[in-house]
Amino acid sequence: MPVYKAPIDDIRFVLYDLLKAEQMTALPDYEDATPDLVMQILEEGAKMCEEILFPLNQSGDAEGCQFDNGAVTTPKGFKDAYNTFTEGGWCGLSLDPKYGGMGMPAFVNCAMQELICASNMSFGMYPGLSQGCYDAIHLHGDDAQKNLYLPKLNEGIWSGTMCLTEPHCGTDLGLVRTKAEDHAGKDGSYAITGTKIFISAGEHDLAENIIHLVLARLPNAPEGVQGISLFVVPKFLPKEENGDYVSGAENGVSCGSIEHKMGIKASSTCVINFENAQGWLVGAPHKGLKAMFTMMNAARLGVAMQGLGIAEVAQQNAVAYAKDRLQMRALDGVKAPDKPADPIIVHPDVRRMLLTGKAFCEGARALSLWVGTMLDRAEKHPDPIERRKADDLVALLTPILKAYQTDMGSEIANNAVQVHGGHGYIWEYGVEQYVRDARIAQIYEGTNGIQALDLVGRKMPQNMGRLLRSFFHPVSVFIEDNQANPALSACVFPLAKAFMKLQQSTAVIAQKGMKNPLEAGAAASDYLRQFALVAMGYMWAQMAKTALEKLEDDNTSNKDFYENKIKTAHFFFAKMLPDSDARFKTILAGAETLMAMDAEAF
Amino acid sequence: MPVYKAPIDDIRFVLYDLLKAEQMTALPDYEDATPDLVMQILEEGAKMCEEILFPLNQSGDAEGCQFDNGAVTTPKGFKDAYNTFTEGGWCGLSLDPKYGGMGMPAFVNCAMQELICASNMSFGMYPGLSQGCYDAIHLHGDDAQKNLYLPKLNEGIWSGTMCLTEPHCGTDLGLVRTKAEDHAGKDGSYAITGTKIFISAGEHDLAENIIHLVLARLPNAPEGVQGISLFVVPKFLPKEENGDYVSGAENGVSCGSIEHKMGIKASSTCVINFENAQGWLVGAPHKGLKAMFTMMNAARLGVAMQGLGIAEVAQQNAVAYAKDRLQMRALDGVKAPDKPADPIIVHPDVRRMLLTGKAFCEGARALSLWVGTMLDRAEKHPDPIERRKADDLVALLTPILKAYQTDMGSEIANNAVQVHGGHGYIWEYGVEQYVRDARIAQIYEGTNGIQALDLVGRKMPQNMGRLLRSFFHPVSVFIEDNQANPALSACVFPLAKAFMKLQQSTAVIAQKGMKNPLEAGAAASDYLRQFALVAMGYMWAQMAKTALEKLEDDNTSNKDFYENKIKTAHFFFAKMLPDSDARFKTILAGAETLMAMDAEAF
Repeated sequence: MPVYKAPIDDIRFVLYDLLKAEQMTALPDYEDATPDLVMQILEEGAKMCEEILFPLNQSGDAEGCQFDNGAVTTPKGFKDAYNTFTEGGWCGLSLDPKYGGMGMPAFVNCAMQELICASNMSFGMYPGLSQGCYDAIHLHGDDAQKNLYLPKLNEGIWSGTMCLTEPHCGTDLGLVRTKAEDHAGKDGSYAITGTKIFISAGEHDLAENIIHLVLARLPNAPEGVQGISLFVVPKFLPKEENGDYVSGAENGVSCGSIEHKMGIKASSTCVINFENAQGWLVGAPHKGLKAMFTMMNAARLGVAMQGLGIAEVAQQNAVAYAKDRLQMRALDGVKAPDKPADPIIVHPDVRRMLLTGKAFCEGARALSLWVGTMLDRAEKHPDPIERRKADDLVALLTPILKAYQTDMGSEIANNAVQVHGGHGYIWEYGVEQYVRDARIAQIYEGTNGIQALDLVGRKMPQNMGRLLRSFFHPVSVFIEDNQANPALSACVFPLAKAFMKLQQSTAVIAQKGMKNPLEAGAAASDYLRQFALVAMGYMWAQMAKTALEKLEDDNTSNKDFYENKIKTAHFFFAKMLPDSDARFKTILAGAETLMAMDAEAF
Repeated sequence: MPVYKAPIDDIRFVLYDLLKAEQMTALPDYEDATPDLVMQILEEGAKMCEEILFPLNQSGDAEGCQFDNGAVTTPKGFKDAYNTFTEGGWCGLSLDPKYGGMGMPAFVNCAMQELICASNMSFGMYPGLSQGCYDAIHLHGDDAQKNLYLPKLNEGIWSGTMCLTEPHCGTDLGLVRTKAEDHAGKDGSYAITGTKIFISAGEHDLAENIIHLVLARLPNAPEGVQGISLFVVPKFLPKEENGDYVSGAENGVSCGSIEHKMGIKASSTCVINFENAQGWLVGAPHKGLKAMFTMMNAARLGVAMQGLGIAEVAQQNAVAYAKDRLQMRALDGVKAPDKPADPIIVHPDVRRMLLTGKAFCEGARALSLWVGTMLDRAEKHPDPIERRKADDLVALLTPILKAYQTDMGSEIANNAVQVHGGHGYIWEYGVEQYVRDARIAQIYEGTNGIQALDLVGRKMPQNMGRLLRSFFHPVSVFIEDNQANPALSACVFPLAKAFMKLQQSTAVIAQKGMKNPLEAGAAASDYLRQFALVAMGYMWAQMAKTALEKLEDDNTSNKDFYENKIKTAHFFFAKMLPDSDARFKTILAGAETLMAMDAEAF
């Protein structure tokens, strides 16, 4: 049976030792988000994740969602868990108090997302999609739409979806065919007709109504991405009753089938058919794709947290097994003479996998929560320059976190299987499920290849490289400030070298890519990984510094914790960062060998 | 629906352009193995794989094996396919003609293994395990055992297993508890009692009898690996009837359950209980583990071919999808103006994944078949020095092929999913099955971590590094002979640099490992990968050279084929080989950061 314990101590370290998130109370609206309150909320959330969501993860995988004649039944226990979740107010953790939300900063939600995804990624999809739907209406809807939908989504009584993909178009949304026709005689609404696929939470039995956000074309819309509009299409038409809204008549929305997937089997992935369904335009005509993209960063960060969450739970199970499983003796002599063999955690190759997991999870947690605090600064900081800087950093790092953290989520889950040996391949042990669940996060919300293109094609050149400076500048300052500190040299030296190479490859890509966009495309994935490793290095060097300071402080009680931080930092720089060198070389090798062969010759 | 076409042209290129396998007819017993006959056999085999085995792969995954009260039913169609397979004589392709085998060289079997694993890895497990059982009896059994079991295993009328693992011991077979007690009053046989787990093909409905090879302890056997003996324990006791053997009474062997696994669901993985089952000692008492290990190389090469096979079929499906799927326009301008978008194979990042698959499959095929021919030289060459050299090379490269090719099998299968985008995550498209099936090959027959330890701990120091010289010497000679050829410089230069670093890390590991075995253990996995990349580079440089020679020859018809070989070689050196540099750095970083942390701190 798999185990999971929310890493509350590490979250506290990242938020309040490393990031000094107590300063976030200086932002307007976040005065109440004190360390005490934030940690109390997260501890409460951790309890729910450990006790309610996690025990349903494996049974949910075994049972999956069931489809019968248009209806979808979630696995046993999901409905009760959803009720506990919504009644606890977790849907609204960071949502607008104006519509009933708890109004906590985004970084708190970010931390909570990790816990939810670690305990039950499939379950997390349902409130996760609702939040995407909420954000879009909150940003782009009119007041009537906000008043109608946001309180219900905030409470979780209604859930939401995002209906983008069609059978012939996923990445290329310019090809969308779903039509929106004038709905003669109705209140400015449209008749939506078309088929959407891969709709997560598209149909289920958890909520009273499902609010679909649908990309479709208005009559005479221009071709391509310039002709796509966003509509809100509820499964049941809301009607007013005693000053409240309730779900009314059916609305031409039906679920045609659900997919049989590799993983996240308890999350329904639906074909949704719209047949003259009544829908209302959200935002301006033909600006639907842009509206979707403004909330894409949030969705992508959510997926990055899935990668981290799965990695963390997989890692915990790998560690537990490696301490328990007795097999062979340590290479440097018997460690457990009273036992028939030593626990496999004595073997360096097992430690290599476990330390990779540890260094990834703790580094990515720091990186994610840093970006989380930047989301709040970008929205709430009184100084527009600070807002812009924070927004630049979020925009730059989002594709990097999405791709790197989900790639590593799969890698760490696979390592957990490997540590388990043959038992890892068996369903009952629970870790092979993490491999299957983690896999989708590399694909949806833009494949990781698309993230890399977003980085080199949009984020890198944007405003003459201004976004890059939001990251390069603090890293330069940190290196300069700390390079003379001998206690940090095992971290700062390799960071400085890797950072120099990142700047070099940035220049090379910018220069070559200007002449030939294929060069930027060819470098994209390697560059994203190189960048991610430097960003992780920046985090690890800062964490080592923080830990050193804590160790120098006589009042620090938990000294082991800080010593282990430093040891993990040293592992990262010795064993994980060197991959950035190889990426640098493949970037310099250019596009030529990728493009030389005719398509037919593959 | 997935597709598969056996890569016969590429196999022909490797065998007869690159490896000059026509020279193998000079070995005794292989006079008949002419290029014509070998290719005719492989083409026949390809047809069977494409038409019989491949169509059952996906249905076999959906249906899985069924367990009912001790009996195991294989998926629909498997029994008929098995009959076709055995009637075609495929079980005996490379087996001893003395017992009815076809007596083809091992390299032919090696090539055939790839095709079987590509078309249906689960199916291939049944004859694969029989061959392991056959080899052990052939090598270690007495004449009576050979005469009794080998003809039946050769025909496939009986199948075989290898029963090693127990619930508390997999890697560490010294902990085996299964007992062999004197069987009073019977013909020198023993009563075997114990429980074995993870027994592939342990029970099924394909063959009339199942011959288990079981590791167990004789009475008063020494502790640990020195006290393990090998027994043959048939499911049904054979009896003589009209000069033939038939299956007689039941023999205290029962299947307790089958595992629910991540993949290879059509291959039964059984708990096998032995209760006073009658068994006969194979080979000398207490020498069972050694007997098993003499055939382990063959089994590990078989698993390496599974990695290659899965990679090849996944690659073919990724290519087919990438040519077909229309999405976005090429970065350097529209390629298919008559279509709504360009096929995704125009995108450099998609090509990066496809070329990685192509370069891996073709390189690994060359490497595997090279080792295949060395198996034959090791067994049949009249000169004992040549036999020893070939045997050294096989022993050295076996753990490398097993680990590298299975790691890459998973990587290429995962890339195929990624190329498919969301569709890759859906069962119907067939590629996610390859990820699930491929995963086990990194674990069984010794996890890939164990392969790495075998390389640095046994193969590297063996006979003062003699095994290493069997590889280092030909590579040195090749580099020296070709470094002045400007047409090959894009291959030979990077190969020479990577080879130099491999020699350096070899020296470092040998030196440090002598003082502290943890240093060798810490370097093992990175060193194996570094070595594998250099070995692949050696193959790719030779293939490029062969292709250049073919292009210079006016009689060569299929010039595109050879030009594409050179392009793929260039891709390998530009984009895949640099990883060996990063591995070099992590090796030099040593064991310290791996061992610094207390087990409890993880």
